[in-house]
Amino acid sequence: MTNRTVFYVSESTGITAETMGHSLLSQFDAVDFEQVYMPYINTELRAHALTERMQEAAERDGVRPIVFATMLDDGIRQILRGGNCFYMELFEGFIEPLAEELGVAPSRMSGRSHAITRPSSYTKRIEAINFAMANDDGIRPDNFNRADVVLIGVSRSGKTPTCLYLAMHYGLCSANYPITEEDFVRGDVPQEVWDSRHKLFALTIDPLRLQLIREERRPGSEYASMTRCEQDIKKAQAIYRRLNVPILNTTTQSIEEISSHIVKIVGNAVTRPLVGGAR
Amino acid sequence: MTNRTVFYVSESTGITAETMGHSLLSQFDAVDFEQVYMPYINTELRAHALTERMQEAAERDGVRPIVFATMLDDGIRQILRGGNCFYMELFEGFIEPLAEELGVAPSRMSGRSHAITRPSSYTKRIEAINFAMANDDGIRPDNFNRADVVLIGVSRSGKTPTCLYLAMHYGLCSANYPITEEDFVRGDVPQEVWDSRHKLFALTIDPLRLQLIREERRPGSEYASMTRCEQDIKKAQAIYRRLNVPILNTTTQSIEEISSHIVKIVGNAVTRPLVGGAR
Repeated sequence: MTNRTVFYVSESTGITAETMGHSLLSQFDAVDFEQVYMPYINTELRAHALTERMQEAAERDGVRPIVFATMLDDGIRQILRGGNCFYMELFEGFIEPLAEELGVAPSRMSGRSHAITRPSSYTKRIEAINFAMANDDGIRPDNFNRADVVLIGVSRSGKTPTCLYLAMHYGLCSANYPITEEDFVRGDVPQEVWDSRHKLFALTIDPLRLQLIREERRPGSEYASMTRCEQDIKKAQAIYRRLNVPILNTTTQSIEEISSHIVKIVGNAVTRPLVGGAR
Repeated sequence: MTNRTVFYVSESTGITAETMGHSLLSQFDAVDFEQVYMPYINTELRAHALTERMQEAAERDGVRPIVFATMLDDGIRQILRGGNCFYMELFEGFIEPLAEELGVAPSRMSGRSHAITRPSSYTKRIEAINFAMANDDGIRPDNFNRADVVLIGVSRSGKTPTCLYLAMHYGLCSANYPITEEDFVRGDVPQEVWDSRHKLFALTIDPLRLQLIREERRPGSEYASMTRCEQDIKKAQAIYRRLNVPILNTTTQSIEEISSHIVKIVGNAVTRPLVGGAR
């Protein structure tokens, strides 16, 4: 397996360079990438320092590093291009055609994408995060009526990370309800859950995976036993069927994937209120 | 202000198309963009349905919509290209040169970037999120020794969302300590905070902004008064100076920006353990 150093470079946060670069690299599993994150390369001095790191990487790997960059300053870009690297400028080739199509000149200002250029939508995200924190683990079912999305699932099925992702990335006020023994005994979930069906999503997970997660949390406990995990999932599934809500499996899907599925279903009624001018 | 519909299209989550497309759009503030998020366009049927939505948008706006896409299937891409839109294929132009540089053929598999292709690093992220949840608001200073990053700040200065972002995106186990009246009276913070100085970051915020946030939380309270906010910040600043740790201002910087600054300082000792093949 060849090893290759990769630099994600930007004049600001570098989130775009990293996201795009990573997506491109994920097409090449045969290569082992050493990824270096280089935000705020916004002076020629920093650019020169980076070219020195490129040289070190080239000598260490025996092959030039790959650079994914989103530079808006020509001077800085030229310095980086001059370094010993395979340079990929991610904005180049898009901004000009886009400017032509829009009939507007680009601002060429860096750091617009992840800055607070729209305080109202940024505030909405922060409030969504606070809402998710305050409504985790079924603490306040009486708040479900204020939620955009409600997740239901057994303990350790991935409710909390998914709620936080939905809040952080989509500004969705997300709450969750953990199905517990109490619900199984009653054979039903509280009225607040039923009332949320139009925005309710059920999370399921393979018993084997659940068992591993619970075992780490409470080793040797009945709670972590295979029988208990299988029973919990089985009983939960029965309740999901009665609720007749979408069921998502967190065993093989990441929180990003689960969240996109949810947003797709919640639909474009949701306009993603992220930071940044265009949002 | 012209209105323009934008579609973010992908065969999987669409996170890359959305991140990259948004960054490009943030260069054109003069245009008002209506953004539509279109993940999982992974069949020709769905692609055809989307071309119909493009047509509707074109008729509604009086100008063709813009499409940012990361398609790997030629058939689906051709259908989208055929629609009434300004089509920008974000991967095109990068994958082939990259393949040539790496000497490896691309897998052409979609959805690699945000899938769980590296369970170990995915698990690390989820554990970091759980750590951040369990160590929010100074609940367990005795856990600071297990944290990668510790944030300190007055109430409502942005500690919690920043900790969650650091955990979710960088897999950093993040904890935070809220400076309270108790610390001001003592004129000092607990030993656990001092012991964390090498990984401690102080958050500050403009008193006026803090006052607004607190006022929303507890209207008319002494806690939300301008005098109290100014005092809290002033006393906190004095403690930060003694701790001699980096101070970040959350008034004008987003959690993304604050987090990149922190990651840059924490340095590349941190290898970002995100989901996806290359991570």
